[in-house]
Amino acid sequence: MFNLLSLQGGIDNVEGFYSDGVNVGLKTKSVNPDQIDGDVAFIRSDKLCEVAARFTTNKFQAAPIKHYQKYPEGFQTNFLLMNAKNANAMTGAKGVEDIDALFEKLGNHITLHNPIMSSTGVIGYRLKQDKISAAFEQFDYNAKNSDKAARSIMTTDRFKKELCFRVELDNGTAFHIAAICKGAGMINPAMATMLCFITTDADIPKADMEELLSEATEQSFNRISVDGDTSTNDTIMLLANQASGVYHKEAFRQALNKITFELAMMILRDGEGANKLVAFEVKGAKNDAEARQASIALSNSLLVKTALFGEDPNWGRIASTIGASGIECDDTTLTIHYEHLLIYSNDQRELDKERENQAYAIMKNDSFRIICDLGIGEGSYTSYGCDLSYDYVKINAEYRT
Amino acid sequence: MFNLLSLQGGIDNVEGFYSDGVNVGLKTKSVNPDQIDGDVAFIRSDKLCEVAARFTTNKFQAAPIKHYQKYPEGFQTNFLLMNAKNANAMTGAKGVEDIDALFEKLGNHITLHNPIMSSTGVIGYRLKQDKISAAFEQFDYNAKNSDKAARSIMTTDRFKKELCFRVELDNGTAFHIAAICKGAGMINPAMATMLCFITTDADIPKADMEELLSEATEQSFNRISVDGDTSTNDTIMLLANQASGVYHKEAFRQALNKITFELAMMILRDGEGANKLVAFEVKGAKNDAEARQASIALSNSLLVKTALFGEDPNWGRIASTIGASGIECDDTTLTIHYEHLLIYSNDQRELDKERENQAYAIMKNDSFRIICDLGIGEGSYTSYGCDLSYDYVKINAEYRT
Repeated sequence: MFNLLSLQGGIDNVEGFYSDGVNVGLKTKSVNPDQIDGDVAFIRSDKLCEVAARFTTNKFQAAPIKHYQKYPEGFQTNFLLMNAKNANAMTGAKGVEDIDALFEKLGNHITLHNPIMSSTGVIGYRLKQDKISAAFEQFDYNAKNSDKAARSIMTTDRFKKELCFRVELDNGTAFHIAAICKGAGMINPAMATMLCFITTDADIPKADMEELLSEATEQSFNRISVDGDTSTNDTIMLLANQASGVYHKEAFRQALNKITFELAMMILRDGEGANKLVAFEVKGAKNDAEARQASIALSNSLLVKTALFGEDPNWGRIASTIGASGIECDDTTLTIHYEHLLIYSNDQRELDKERENQAYAIMKNDSFRIICDLGIGEGSYTSYGCDLSYDYVKINAEYRT
Repeated sequence: MFNLLSLQGGIDNVEGFYSDGVNVGLKTKSVNPDQIDGDVAFIRSDKLCEVAARFTTNKFQAAPIKHYQKYPEGFQTNFLLMNAKNANAMTGAKGVEDIDALFEKLGNHITLHNPIMSSTGVIGYRLKQDKISAAFEQFDYNAKNSDKAARSIMTTDRFKKELCFRVELDNGTAFHIAAICKGAGMINPAMATMLCFITTDADIPKADMEELLSEATEQSFNRISVDGDTSTNDTIMLLANQASGVYHKEAFRQALNKITFELAMMILRDGEGANKLVAFEVKGAKNDAEARQASIALSNSLLVKTALFGEDPNWGRIASTIGASGIECDDTTLTIHYEHLLIYSNDQRELDKERENQAYAIMKNDSFRIICDLGIGEGSYTSYGCDLSYDYVKINAEYRT
């Protein structure tokens, strides 16, 4: 019906989009020296873009989000400005004014139509107008430097996150969908500190953008947890310039789901100090909501996360977390598997040496599934978590300074 | 009206109560060498005791709790058996049978009346009958060895927790109230892995025991959080043998509240790897329930806890956690203080160097208050948390093995 081809590079491959990133001195040191390449970046389109966006559920939404929300429903844009190291959050009315002031300066360099800004970094400081506007002199507005843009939005990320698919339809036509993304900590199943900008040249109608972006977010970013915290700045945005003139809804859906799921897994793998990616599959719950509640409790539990780091098949912490999650459960119907290996059931409560050794072997992998069947109903949900290591504490105790 | 005198030692001072602890080889190594002194212990009373107890909200309650609940409402007891290293949780019907089997053996050494058991340790293993019953030969049933009993129930605790008050009334009479307690990690504002056994010789009626124990638990153990996890075994129990014939309700209330609050703070100070104790006072919320929701979100937040460890006055994490807690809030009415120091208000959003240095100085203390006034209503709540250090990860990655 259609082919999804993974291409090298990010948004460079998407017709009519341009991007660049430069360093103006907001980032001076970093977890990863590669990040220092840039701290201010842009994505722009020749043609006006339709936009769909999902923002953080945090009540204290950052200034860039408030700025976006001042535009009327259905507005079109040609420019997205991004910066790292400063979230422009909790900055009050001044925070929004600062964005307008920046765009006034930027307008001297490039034609702007409803420009959007997105920020990540420390909360509580005003944007440095001089530093950021210095970038406007340095940007190459016709560059295809997705790599630099992707690096510029990294904060505690260990690696850049950038993906592109070419979607080839049976009739020989094609469109592209690509994204850059940042996120490593403060990730919770409510789309926490992460920014994700998806560009496409597909000729997608605005209504489909909203529908498919919601679906894609729910099955990806909303299911991952690094530390259970939800930031003030989380943003996932889809920009469509329709330049290819080509569209196929089911193909677009699959491509968008794939790109967002893969990026979510990249965030989790990059979870601050994280070494393991674990899928917590809860099934047999009273309903999907209860399965979700237990699954998310598992991916957020400190005791589960430290047991993963210690590679300790201590299933008692799994059971205890389910029991404490507030859902209906019963220790006589519960079963716990690590991959295919039965770890706990009513008849087999104690882990003998042989199964314990098999469990150790599974836990040595850098990703595996923990499957908890409550044996009560038909509800199921899978969320994704990671371990908690010394490095998480180190990164987060020392961040900011 | 009355005097509360703090006495050395624990339950030894309470008339008619005896206790001892021995090591039968369940504990072979430990975070703290002092703990190895004991792993099985008892508290017994000459006279039958009235009992009131509060147990974990975890759905998978451990076998000792199920065993307790088989007794009829209003039962009296003369014996409490305790062990560490094995929680006897998720052990099914066998877990309860194992307790009955132990008491059958114990009955050969001492007269038992509705004996109670309480356990802490690893989930998912049956009790070792031989090892535990070996203790029955070694116990001195007429000993006043509260110290040994208190050490025997320690798991990852760095220090033993034991308190006693003599309550002297104006008419020259007196009663005693004392407790031993364990707990260091997996502590959540729902009375998580902690055991607390309070003994009294006050002539307290059963109805008052229930009322005052609920009040005391709510203002102490229910307000502390080490890691947000709730165990299968949490127990707080009040045993009253009425031996002194003396009682004064208000005096008892104050003594019980003081003993439980002090023990709760001792647990928090002993929080696995914790170095700082922080009171999160939330006020000006829409109502008390919303204040509680925000306060507990703060004491559970990994990002807040690591910032405390790093002694970083990063108030953005405080604000972000409040914003993400789901309560009504507004960044123009919010104020944040560290002790008396204003850290954030609508007019003073950026922390200047002087105030930042003052904040550093406050955060160097081993305990301080963070006061968040939402400026909306009259709701208030205080919970207590601690920092998250490398040692938390170390202790919990390596526990069990």
